[in-house]
Amino acid sequence: MVPHLITALTGPINELEQRVLDSMPAIERWFRLEWMEHTPPFYTSVDIRNAGFKLAPVDTNLYPGGWANLTPEMLPLAVQSAMAAIEKICPEAKNLLVIPENNTRDTYYLANLAQLKRIFHMAGLNVRIGSIDPDVKEPTSVSLPDGDSVLIEPIVRSRRRLGLKDFDPCTILLNNDLSTGVPGILEDIHEQYLLPPLHAGWSVRRKSNHFQSYEEISKRFGKLLGIDPWLITPMFNKCGAVNFAEGDGMDCLTTNVDALLGKIRKKYKEYGIGEKPFVVVKADNGTSGLAIATVREAKELEALTGQGSAQMSAMKEGGRAPVRDVIVQEGVLTNERIDQAVAEPVVYMMDRYVVGGFYRVHAGRGSDENLNAPGAGYVPLAFADSTRLPQPGAKPGASAPNRFYMYGVIGRLAMLAASYELEATDPDAEVYD
Amino acid sequence: MVPHLITALTGPINELEQRVLDSMPAIERWFRLEWMEHTPPFYTSVDIRNAGFKLAPVDTNLYPGGWANLTPEMLPLAVQSAMAAIEKICPEAKNLLVIPENNTRDTYYLANLAQLKRIFHMAGLNVRIGSIDPDVKEPTSVSLPDGDSVLIEPIVRSRRRLGLKDFDPCTILLNNDLSTGVPGILEDIHEQYLLPPLHAGWSVRRKSNHFQSYEEISKRFGKLLGIDPWLITPMFNKCGAVNFAEGDGMDCLTTNVDALLGKIRKKYKEYGIGEKPFVVVKADNGTSGLAIATVREAKELEALTGQGSAQMSAMKEGGRAPVRDVIVQEGVLTNERIDQAVAEPVVYMMDRYVVGGFYRVHAGRGSDENLNAPGAGYVPLAFADSTRLPQPGAKPGASAPNRFYMYGVIGRLAMLAASYELEATDPDAEVYD
Repeated sequence: MVPHLITALTGPINELEQRVLDSMPAIERWFRLEWMEHTPPFYTSVDIRNAGFKLAPVDTNLYPGGWANLTPEMLPLAVQSAMAAIEKICPEAKNLLVIPENNTRDTYYLANLAQLKRIFHMAGLNVRIGSIDPDVKEPTSVSLPDGDSVLIEPIVRSRRRLGLKDFDPCTILLNNDLSTGVPGILEDIHEQYLLPPLHAGWSVRRKSNHFQSYEEISKRFGKLLGIDPWLITPMFNKCGAVNFAEGDGMDCLTTNVDALLGKIRKKYKEYGIGEKPFVVVKADNGTSGLAIATVREAKELEALTGQGSAQMSAMKEGGRAPVRDVIVQEGVLTNERIDQAVAEPVVYMMDRYVVGGFYRVHAGRGSDENLNAPGAGYVPLAFADSTRLPQPGAKPGASAPNRFYMYGVIGRLAMLAASYELEATDPDAEVYD
Repeated sequence: MVPHLITALTGPINELEQRVLDSMPAIERWFRLEWMEHTPPFYTSVDIRNAGFKLAPVDTNLYPGGWANLTPEMLPLAVQSAMAAIEKICPEAKNLLVIPENNTRDTYYLANLAQLKRIFHMAGLNVRIGSIDPDVKEPTSVSLPDGDSVLIEPIVRSRRRLGLKDFDPCTILLNNDLSTGVPGILEDIHEQYLLPPLHAGWSVRRKSNHFQSYEEISKRFGKLLGIDPWLITPMFNKCGAVNFAEGDGMDCLTTNVDALLGKIRKKYKEYGIGEKPFVVVKADNGTSGLAIATVREAKELEALTGQGSAQMSAMKEGGRAPVRDVIVQEGVLTNERIDQAVAEPVVYMMDRYVVGGFYRVHAGRGSDENLNAPGAGYVPLAFADSTRLPQPGAKPGASAPNRFYMYGVIGRLAMLAASYELEATDPDAEVYD
């Protein structure tokens, strides 16, 4: 049984849900036309926060690692989407090589790899997993709690191609977000499809570029629906080169935090919202829930400097980045609760299609905090009822499928923003002009 | 609860199932490459018979009318496939006009229309239903047993376009198989997409063309899998211009029935099958389960002549065709049973994707008879478990999802045959050369 899900179901969100449902054909056509001009990322997950009075994406991941959370009911949609994606990119493909994260001991992550392998196998590919981690020197099979196992093999680079011993893939799927930089072994691959492209990795990506694209898209989408785009957009601004340990750049940060808190206050007043505004300070290229802090007043920034600077310089695999670009994002409360624990929806997409989703649940965190964090209460929970289609005519707020449809629309808006973002940052863009 | 389904699960079919599962990536890639060269029909349903020792499609419908039998769990796949289909054919489409069968009193068929409308609405289109039946003079709303209702409106033809009053569709979807011929109102439509094309209707289609294409495809597919293509192919031959009432052309029919029974007998001997061979005599352009007779010996043909000729001259909407081309098809037993009633699987596809299926069940018919016939025992029953993906490793014959995957492969082979067939019979084909 799925634990009971409690969400604030009053106010503007229900109006938004109704507006979204009523506009379904227009929305789907709008996406259809956008995808004629823009290529969706190969796969995408989007973290969404539903404050009851607004609903916004807060993080867009182009190397989703939670596929194992999808239920068996959701898999056929994922397989069908994978077929559509492959058919467009490399229909003649036989072999697919998946490159995982370097830290591969986590069984949660390994189950994700097993699921990806399953999906692409069903879609018609021979799938093997090849690690770029120099510590992986021999094929290693790891057992999973469910009895399944995953074989991770060392990658073999020839002059022009990447592969495994006796396995020459025509397509390589990265499930590694490259936050520690693009390793040389992945460079100058011109004969094989490398997906997503290298500039989708966090060594190039910036959250501020993403949310800039999102803001522009949500303005146009807001016009289509006749709504204030703020209802679906987190406001933000940014500061370059902040050194938290030394305190350099903190003036910019203080000014920007103050300014953004002021803008939120104004919006809350406009909508009669009694909540306390907050912002989230994040490394502009951070990942895995690291380097994120909730700030309710500018003076709280002090706690992030000097000895408290470790939090904001944290990187994946234990790395440290003393100087960082920083994004200050409007904090969006999450008012979904599962058994009294704070929950936020995560939408999973393959190619242009929503294939499912789940809740990230953290009993130890508050409604204004980042939930993507270690903690005993962390329970990914699949959307119940998500394989049912929206139900026009249901009372706004009373239908889970309708709410999931709305989440899927917001997830796709963020995916579209990522598509714009990748176009704008494509180093080879001029080649195609 | 779904009634218990009993199927003969011994012998060659389990080997075939195993072979199909083992070859999954190769099969999916094979289809992928085929669809690069050939356009799938817009939507397709295929009747399949599983004899335990062989498995074959026996009828391919390009205007499927049983969408209402799909379960809510199957609908998201149908919607996603509809999105893919529209995106390729007419991404800018806003309005879709569905043209139903002329006899629209049958609530089973009306529920099919409601379901089609639902699917294309969710895929992002404004959908309305416009009848070409001259008896439909006013918009008529019909209530369905489930509380839903369907509005059927009279079609309006202008010089160049088809539509409804105040509704100008850019795409027109036929759910009418045109067995009584192409009405003038559908001709010379050049500004709108008319799907499927007019030559997919039964006034042009011939079963013998379809099974000729299927035979060629199954030979190549058999090579891919390393199996005798007979295991998935119904043999056939044909006679032109048979007049059952007058007895003209019966010599040809007798010779062909004898010859085919001989060929089946030889195959049964080769495989050690103890069943009695039979053939099915069908009008080459018949539809809706009409003009079909099971024949175990050539002398039974006499019963179909003279006063017994009504069966073979029957047409939809009560019509009569005294002279017909006839196809003699190898009879394939169906060994699936639901609560002791004979059942045959029907696979539903949209664009190139299998979206679900159901069983046609007929308590009053034998395992060598046509089940698409009126009768109190007619119970369309959705595939249970069909939204689960195939389970590699499961014991052959023991896994319903694996069996449905195999049915989906056979269904797609028949769909591909329809694609070849439509290319070969396209009256405008030379325009594209």
